[in-house]
Amino acid sequence: ESRLPAYATHQVGVAGAVFDEATGKVLVVQDKNKIKNAWKFPGGLSDLGEDIGETAVREVFEETGIRSKFLSLLSIRQQHNHPGAFGKSDMYIVCRLKAVSFDINFCQEECLRCEWMDLEELARSEHTTLITSRIAKLIFYGYREGFDKIDVNMREFPAVYTGLFYKLYHKELPEKYEKLQPNGIK
Amino acid sequence: ESRLPAYATHQVGVAGAVFDEATGKVLVVQDKNKIKNAWKFPGGLSDLGEDIGETAVREVFEETGIRSKFLSLLSIRQQHNHPGAFGKSDMYIVCRLKAVSFDINFCQEECLRCEWMDLEELARSEHTTLITSRIAKLIFYGYREGFDKIDVNMREFPAVYTGLFYKLYHKELPEKYEKLQPNGIK
Repeated sequence: ESRLPAYATHQVGVAGAVFDEATGKVLVVQDKNKIKNAWKFPGGLSDLGEDIGETAVREVFEETGIRSKFLSLLSIRQQHNHPGAFGKSDMYIVCRLKAVSFDINFCQEECLRCEWMDLEELARSEHTTLITSRIAKLIFYGYREGFDKIDVNMREFPAVYTGLFYKLYHKELPEKYEKLQPNGIK
Repeated sequence: ESRLPAYATHQVGVAGAVFDEATGKVLVVQDKNKIKNAWKFPGGLSDLGEDIGETAVREVFEETGIRSKFLSLLSIRQQHNHPGAFGKSDMYIVCRLKAVSFDINFCQEECLRCEWMDLEELARSEHTTLITSRIAKLIFYGYREGFDKIDVNMREFPAVYTGLFYKLYHKELPEKYEKLQPNGIK
C-alpha cells in the first residue's frame, strides 16, 4: 500500500511570460508534436520543493535559452481530472518575468518554434490557446495602464514551525494599511 | 511500489474570510489545542476534485455553521516541507466570501472560540497569525478603497481535452482589452 499522503492532490505547472518593456515583445513558443500549432508561454511542472518563480525561470531557460527574473504572479488555473495527472488535479500558474538575456537558443526537442512576438500581436492572435490569449490581453492592459493593475506580488516570510521561509502572494498592501498597530492612529 | 505520480507535489488548503460589509465584521475562529490562542479564518484541506471556493465554503460551514458564497481569491502561500505533509509542499489559499447566514453554530471539536469580529480590530490585533493579520489589513484596505484593489477574480472556461470546466483566476480584465480582435480597431 502506498504511504504517499492522499492529500497531495495537485501537480503544479508554471509558465513564464517574459515581457520586454523596451521593445514591447513577449517570449512565446510552439510545442512540438501538437495537432494545432498554438503560440504559448514556455513552462512546465514544478519539481518537489521548487518555488513557483523558480519553476518559471528554469523552464523558460530550458525551453528557450533566455535568462529571466521573477516579477509577479498573474494567473492561476485549477483543473481536475487533468490528462496525464492520473486522477490528480492540476494547478497551472502564469508568472510575469523580466528578461535578463535576449538571444534565443531554443530546445529543439521540446519546441517547434520560439520567438519574441509583439505583445499586441499575441493579444490579437487566433493562433494561441485561450489562456495564453487572456494573459496576453492582461499583460497588454498592464503595459498600457500600469502593471499594478494586474500583478499579484510576492513577499517572503519566516515560517514559525520549520525555520524555513515561505512565499506569500497577494495584491500590493499600501504601507498605511500594512503598518496598522494595536493602538495606532487611524 | 507506489503508482501515484511523483508530480502530485502539493496539498491544497483553503481558508475563507467571510466579511459582512453591512456590519464591518469578519468571521474568525480559534483552533482547539494550540499553545497560542490566535484568531484565524476558518479553513482546511481540499478534497480531491474540489474547487478552491468549494473548499472554503465547506470548511467555513463545518467549522462555524455559517453559510457563505465565494467572491474572490485574495492570497496564496507556498510552503515546502510543510509539517504534516510528509515531505510534500503546501499551497494555502485565502478567499473572500460573502455571508449568507449569520448565526454561529461552531464545531466544538475543532474550535475553542468563534465570533464575528470587527475587521479593523482584527487588522490591529496581536492575537492572530502573521497571514491572518496581513489578509485582515488587505481586506480593510479593500473595504476602505474598493475591493477591486485586492480581488483576484474567477471565471470558468471549458477545457479542450476533458470536456469539463476549469476555473481561471486573475485580476479583472476590462472589456476593452478582453474584446481585442485580430483586425479590431485599437
